[in-house]
This record gives sequence, C-alpha cells and structure tokens, in this order.
Amino acid sequence: MAAWGERLAGVRGVLLDISGVLYDSGEGGGKQIPGSVEAVARLKRSGLKVRFCTNESQKSRKHLVGELRHLGFDISESEVTAPPPAACRILKERGLRPHLLVHDEVRSEFDQINTSNPNCVVIADAGENFSYQNVNKAFQVLMELESPVLMSLGMGRYYKVTSGLMLDVGSYTKALEYACGIEAEVVGKPSPEFFKSALREMGVEAPQAVMIGDDIVGDVGGAQRCGMRALQVRTGKFRPSDEHHPEVKADGHVDNLAEAVDLLLQHADK
Amino acid sequence: MAAWGERLAGVRGVLLDISGVLYDSGEGGGKQIPGSVEAVARLKRSGLKVRFCTNESQKSRKHLVGELRHLGFDISESEVTAPPPAACRILKERGLRPHLLVHDEVRSEFDQINTSNPNCVVIADAGENFSYQNVNKAFQVLMELESPVLMSLGMGRYYKVTSGLMLDVGSYTKALEYACGIEAEVVGKPSPEFFKSALREMGVEAPQAVMIGDDIVGDVGGAQRCGMRALQVRTGKFRPSDEHHPEVKADGHVDNLAEAVDLLLQHADK
Repeated sequence: MAAWGERLAGVRGVLLDISGVLYDSGEGGGKQIPGSVEAVARLKRSGLKVRFCTNESQKSRKHLVGELRHLGFDISESEVTAPPPAACRILKERGLRPHLLVHDEVRSEFDQINTSNPNCVVIADAGENFSYQNVNKAFQVLMELESPVLMSLGMGRYYKVTSGLMLDVGSYTKALEYACGIEAEVVGKPSPEFFKSALREMGVEAPQAVMIGDDIVGDVGGAQRCGMRALQVRTGKFRPSDEHHPEVKADGHVDNLAEAVDLLLQHADK
Repeated sequence: MAAWGERLAGVRGVLLDISGVLYDSGEGGGKQIPGSVEAVARLKRSGLKVRFCTNESQKSRKHLVGELRHLGFDISESEVTAPPPAACRILKERGLRPHLLVHDEVRSEFDQINTSNPNCVVIADAGENFSYQNVNKAFQVLMELESPVLMSLGMGRYYKVTSGLMLDVGSYTKALEYACGIEAEVVGKPSPEFFKSALREMGVEAPQAVMIGDDIVGDVGGAQRCGMRALQVRTGKFRPSDEHHPEVKADGHVDNLAEAVDLLLQHADK
C-alpha cells in the first residue's frame, strides 16, 4: 500500500464518526476511547475542517453532545450531522406523516412533525422499544398503506456498548422490508445524500475529505462511494476480519483516533 | 387457464397447510374457517391420501392438534409434518447444541436436545418472546461463534390471527442474517427437504400431489419448486395481489378449503 504521505495528500476536511471512534456508549454515559478527547482537540487546532457525522438515532443531538462534553470533548450541536433533522426535512417536503418506531429519547426531534393518521413509518435505533408488539405495530401500519414508505435512520447492523454488541436499526429494517416486500429509504450513512450534506456543511469537496469510522461498510464503504477517502479505526465495532472485507478496502487502518490524528497532522494537505 | 379436470388430473395425495386454511388462530384457540372441518372429513373419506404440512413453530404438535380436535377436526399428531421434530433430527445428526429463540410453548419439543454451551441458534416463531433482549442475545451467541449456524423453522413473513397480521419467524431471521452477515438454514416450508419428507410420509410422489395453502410464496411457490401442484385459498393471509404475484403463479385459486375439496373430489385421479 502507498505511504501515508501519498494516501493523505490534499486532505482539508475530516468527518468523524462518534460511537466507537470517540467513545463507547453504555450505561451511565459511556467511556472515552483512550486518547480521543485530546485527538479531537488537536485536530481542531490544526486548521483542518472537522465535522461529526453520526448515525446516532437513539439519542437526541442535544443529549449526545451533552454526554460527549461531559466526557471532555470539544463539540457542539451545530457541528453534528445526524439522521433525525435530515429525516424531518424530507418528511415535511413530501407531506409524510410518520408512525415513529424510535427510542423515547429521540421522539422530541419529531415534535414539529404531524404524526396523526400516519402514511409512512420512520424507524430508528429504538433499543428496548424494539419489542415484538412495537415492531408488529409498525408492520401493520405499513401493510395498511397502498404504497408503503419505510424511512430508516441508518442501516447499521450492530454497535458496541461497554456491555457488548447490540442490534442496530438496520437489522430491524431488514425484518420489515422482508415482511412487507418493500425497500426502505435510508436517511443516514451509508446514503450518499447524507455524506454529501455533511461535506456541504463542512465546506469541503469529497476528494479533499477523509472519513474516520469503525464500520467498514457504513462508514468506510459509504464514504468511498461518495469519492472520499476513509480510514477504519481498530476500536468500537471493528473486527479483525474487516481488514480483509470481501467488498470494502479502507484507505488505511489505524489503532484508534489518536493514531489517525497523528498521521493527519503529519501528512494532510502537504 | 386449463379446465380444473386437466389441472387436477392424477392427484393421489393432498398436503394441507393448517393456519389460514383449516383455521385462523387467535386468543382462546382460534376459529374454524367455515366449511373446513367438513372438508377435511370428506377428503379423508375420499380415498385420497392426506397429510398436514405446517410451519407452525409457536405451538407443540400436541397443543396444535388438541386445539384443532377441539374445533372438530379429524387430525392426529402422526399426520402432521412440522419443523421442530425435523430440526431435532438435524441437530442430533450434526452434534449441534442450540441456543433456542422460540416460544415457551414449543421448548418442550427440544427436551431431548443438549442446549448447554451452544454452538448454533435455532429460531422459531417466538411471538412475544421476540423482545429486543432475546433477539439481541441470539445475535450475541452467533457473533461469538467462529462459523455461526442459524437454523430457522420456516421463513414465513407474517401470518394472520383473528386480531390481525402478525410478524412471523422469517422476518426475524432476516434481521439476524443481516446483523451477522450469514444465511440461515431453513427447516420448514419452503425448503424442498421439508416438502419431500411430507411426501415420503404420505407415500405419494411429487407429480401426484397437490399442496393447498394460503401463502403464495411459502406454500404455493415452495411446493411447485418440488414438482407438486399447488392451490391457493382466498382465506388466512391471502391478499388479492397474490393472484398477480410477480414470481409465483398458483395452479388455481379457490375461495376456501371447502371449494378445493369439492374440485378435488370431482376431478382428482380421474
């Protein structure tokens, strides 16, 4: 593989995944991934543009940012690209009234949306709210619609919390797709529209941007399909087999965000 | 389409789906589909071979047969081909120790199987047991295995009870397949092995047999792929769009089992 200097040449902007890169979430707020607080601070001081690009759909952005600030991260709500606000824009544009299969905590993000007499389903990482009864209710709503619309906030397979691996929204979306014989519209990574909106908000073109994430398919593959470069960290949901993934080849692997930032500060935009 | 006489010529054996054909299950035992008790009795008197072929995996065969006898059906356990006994045979043959994601009621079917230190997951129609916690536990078991084996008792998308449509095992199997990046082994319809074992038990070759079911894909498509003929009833989970299914074309549609039996008695094996 080419030297890092070549692989990172011309990088002007960095998109950072949050869960599994900055911290591992879990009971009582989660834990910093060692070195990440300092790494974010160094990156911001470097003059490179930085934006956080997450599929987090179990917490409101306010809650998420509060948790991260509590852990010591320099981050504000306006720096975060997350699925719920993007979904709200689309729902309004298309006059869609969602039945929400979401975590209680994220329901407030949809306060401005009419949810009466639903004509679509929005599914997010609902955690414990993915009870049989709740998933079945969403299924029944879809089956009653003539042209069922299922909007999925991300397509993550699973994520890691301090206590272990947890099923993510994408797995439940697959269940509903199969049950109803439909295909979901994805709002979040790896949807190209979602990466593009994060790039727009950062003010950097795809070829000058690098994504840093722990998900080989959602983060690395998704970003590369948009023309960005992408590094995978060996933290969070990373598994050794990801380094030999049959379809996606990262532009590089690093042990953690701290190592990625070391390399970026040495080689980016030189 | 050809006349019924031609379509049913040479039929010597009949496989009957149970849920949605004989009865609609539901709270307190479900309800006969009008005319079905009498239709089964007439079919048995006719000299045609009859066997029941179900993907029921929420109830033990004993419980299921008890419920049906209570509704007036002439049926015994030995006449029913169902996934749990077939799964037990395979588990024993291959030395597999399952983690069971099943309904409490069907757990007893696995009494003779070693479930300690699991090296595979068996998923059945678990109903309310498909809680987030239970589904996630099965996921975690699979992710800890080097070569994860997921055995799915059927691949039904949904079924109908008196109170409405309910998600079936296949939808949750799809969720686990996606989460783990694996493909399940299906024991039950539409697996050809399952139809073949029902045919063997009935003692009739596929070209002389007809399947009667309410599921256009699992019953009709599955049976046809085995070389059988298949009729779809307009009861149970039948939906009008099934008559124009993009991939599966039934050998005939009938309003209910009673009409199917009328036609069979008139035209079969002539």
